[in-house]
Amino acid sequence: MAHWQEISGGVTAPRGYQAAGITAGLKPSGLPDLALIWSNVEAMAAGVFTTSQVKAACVDYCRQRLQAKHSARAILCNAGQANASTGRQGVLDAQESAEILAGELKIAPESILLASTGVIGQRIRMDALRGGIPKVVAALSETGSDAAAEAIITTDLVKKSIALETTIGDRPVRIGGIAKGSGMIHPNMATMLAFVTCDAAVSSHLWQQMLTRAADQSFNAITVDGDTSTNDSLIALANGQSRTPAITEMGAEAEKLEAMLTAVCQHLAKAIARDGEGATCLIEVQVTGTYDQVSARQIAKTIAGSSLVKSAIFGRDPNWGRIAAAAGRAGVNFEQDDLQIKLGDFLLLENGQPVPFDRAAASAYLKQIADNSSLPPGLGERTGQRVDNPVIIAVNVGPGHGFGQAWGCDLSYDYVKINAEYTT
Amino acid sequence: MAHWQEISGGVTAPRGYQAAGITAGLKPSGLPDLALIWSNVEAMAAGVFTTSQVKAACVDYCRQRLQAKHSARAILCNAGQANASTGRQGVLDAQESAEILAGELKIAPESILLASTGVIGQRIRMDALRGGIPKVVAALSETGSDAAAEAIITTDLVKKSIALETTIGDRPVRIGGIAKGSGMIHPNMATMLAFVTCDAAVSSHLWQQMLTRAADQSFNAITVDGDTSTNDSLIALANGQSRTPAITEMGAEAEKLEAMLTAVCQHLAKAIARDGEGATCLIEVQVTGTYDQVSARQIAKTIAGSSLVKSAIFGRDPNWGRIAAAAGRAGVNFEQDDLQIKLGDFLLLENGQPVPFDRAAASAYLKQIADNSSLPPGLGERTGQRVDNPVIIAVNVGPGHGFGQAWGCDLSYDYVKINAEYTT
Repeated sequence: MAHWQEISGGVTAPRGYQAAGITAGLKPSGLPDLALIWSNVEAMAAGVFTTSQVKAACVDYCRQRLQAKHSARAILCNAGQANASTGRQGVLDAQESAEILAGELKIAPESILLASTGVIGQRIRMDALRGGIPKVVAALSETGSDAAAEAIITTDLVKKSIALETTIGDRPVRIGGIAKGSGMIHPNMATMLAFVTCDAAVSSHLWQQMLTRAADQSFNAITVDGDTSTNDSLIALANGQSRTPAITEMGAEAEKLEAMLTAVCQHLAKAIARDGEGATCLIEVQVTGTYDQVSARQIAKTIAGSSLVKSAIFGRDPNWGRIAAAAGRAGVNFEQDDLQIKLGDFLLLENGQPVPFDRAAASAYLKQIADNSSLPPGLGERTGQRVDNPVIIAVNVGPGHGFGQAWGCDLSYDYVKINAEYTT
Repeated sequence: MAHWQEISGGVTAPRGYQAAGITAGLKPSGLPDLALIWSNVEAMAAGVFTTSQVKAACVDYCRQRLQAKHSARAILCNAGQANASTGRQGVLDAQESAEILAGELKIAPESILLASTGVIGQRIRMDALRGGIPKVVAALSETGSDAAAEAIITTDLVKKSIALETTIGDRPVRIGGIAKGSGMIHPNMATMLAFVTCDAAVSSHLWQQMLTRAADQSFNAITVDGDTSTNDSLIALANGQSRTPAITEMGAEAEKLEAMLTAVCQHLAKAIARDGEGATCLIEVQVTGTYDQVSARQIAKTIAGSSLVKSAIFGRDPNWGRIAAAAGRAGVNFEQDDLQIKLGDFLLLENGQPVPFDRAAASAYLKQIADNSSLPPGLGERTGQRVDNPVIIAVNVGPGHGFGQAWGCDLSYDYVKINAEYTT
């Protein structure tokens, strides 16, 4: 049973936060393209960034900032140009962005974190950004989360937002988050961004630990097409404005907070996976029976990322052979005679061997999930949230107590169409 | 300059080999489905097999055989049923196959190696196999390579065969090979098989070492969709019938033999990659500048396996951003300012930053490769060999002397169609 409830408000649901999203003229489309998240007080800041060797200037910038100082007050995010593979000029552009914003907000540049998404190899349109920064500051509002969520997306079909509330010491504590997915419709676009706000009082060291673990169980457990971006960033602030007792070490309250943080990250990660290009459904892979969690997650991710499994789900095909083959090549040792595979309620493989099952009914299960997973009204304005009911693939590989999950989406004609037909 | 020439004859080009391929009634299609390769004398035998945890009975069988005895006289391969995920009965079926064949050939069962390809979870149709074994033995011929090459394929569009000749001590030495690809049109089908024959005299230990290294630079350097099979097997025989001096340690002659073995394996591996489902062209990725070969190959394979890169090539899109992003996430450290990317003759990225290039001409280069890469006449009979002129992606990541290659194919609508629409 979850110890929290869903509330509205996204990143501005926790106390002491404002947000804004405006059109600064960065995107050629004229859609909103500049977002700002602002904490009324200095907040503990933690981050998890792309492990790619090819990194955007904002990623290097944030890493250096967070190494020097574990707190921040603002996150500025531009969409349109990724500011990756832009060399020394890209670094200067990032620094200038922070300085202009610091001047507007009347804070030190060291309290500003940056994120970018858009076309790799392109500098940020600095003229537009210089004009946009005062506007986005002026637009800050305690109900600005949706505007910010809209300004950070590029080719996503829907906005991604969540807020949860629990109690610590009888007082409400809230965590909110917004994200954009790895929608890569335009050539060279590929970024996953997520921004999380929290009003608990938590030490910076603990907050970073919690975020790292939460990322492993959420953003690091999804796969759309296996391509990690140059700009992937997850940034989380915790500003203490809930006025709850400070959490400085692990214990019941820390665990409660971390569980809610993980839930926020998992919601956003699943929304990203569901919004994979051309996808018709979300796939959740649950792996049990390993001797540790990492191995279970590794198997789950290999299955969720298999092009053959993804194609089979798109074809509504209960193809256990492809699931077994993906599990087998995940790099985790297990006895094949221990392998069990379930698809929804259908047992497909037991003791490493196929068992009779109703293929038509299993196929109908897959079809029904996809049919019920269509976009709700409001897609045109990108205001809708997708229905997240996933196809469940459950795999047991042995007697161990390890458990891991991963999420992905099916592979459709439209994926190829989207990624092949936007020729330069 | 290569020290060998291409000859005809496939696995029966080297002296002392016969082969056959017949229709035993294993495939529902009625196409040839049982192949035999036979050496007139006991041959040194080496093998490289799938690393999957879910392995076919024939893989376990061969591994055990080759651990006990490093020589063999025959390779029997059935197509139609993979004999994977078939438990104890599958093991018994494999043993019975070897015993029946041993009786027909009047040799010990220990001199027989086995391979299977087809539907995972299905036992071999033993009635058909029992009837087929005497027929395939009767059909053995010194010109039987093509028949064998045809009997091992499942959903491949073309047969895959090669033979090369060089001289050692002024006498001709030959290596031949046949292969089948990871054509996975039918649900649960997924196997890469390659059989190599050689008439050099070489010690079994050295032969295994050569084969392992050759596999790393060929079969382990291709990717169609990243899915490793339950049945993948590469088996190589060397029977000494060239009457050349025995090669028992590394040296000039061993290197010459290994280079030719590697060339045979690379030809077959590229033919498999080119024949990837729905592919319109072969992609060759060449990586330089690492500090070791393994790292270079790892980057090359990551690029060749990227769905985004593959989609871009299908879209004839010179999309360096996706190539850079794939290189960056390959798990190899490099300075992004050292990154250089070429597509054919077009320089796209230098010192980590984009350089101006003629996009239309680069796109035309991709289109021309695909147009010239169509199937030659004879496809209907699966007799043609594809033209293997690849799209070349050349990436340099630094000052090191490491070099590695990988091969793949583009990702087309037809891949999804083939893998999604064969619903069970």
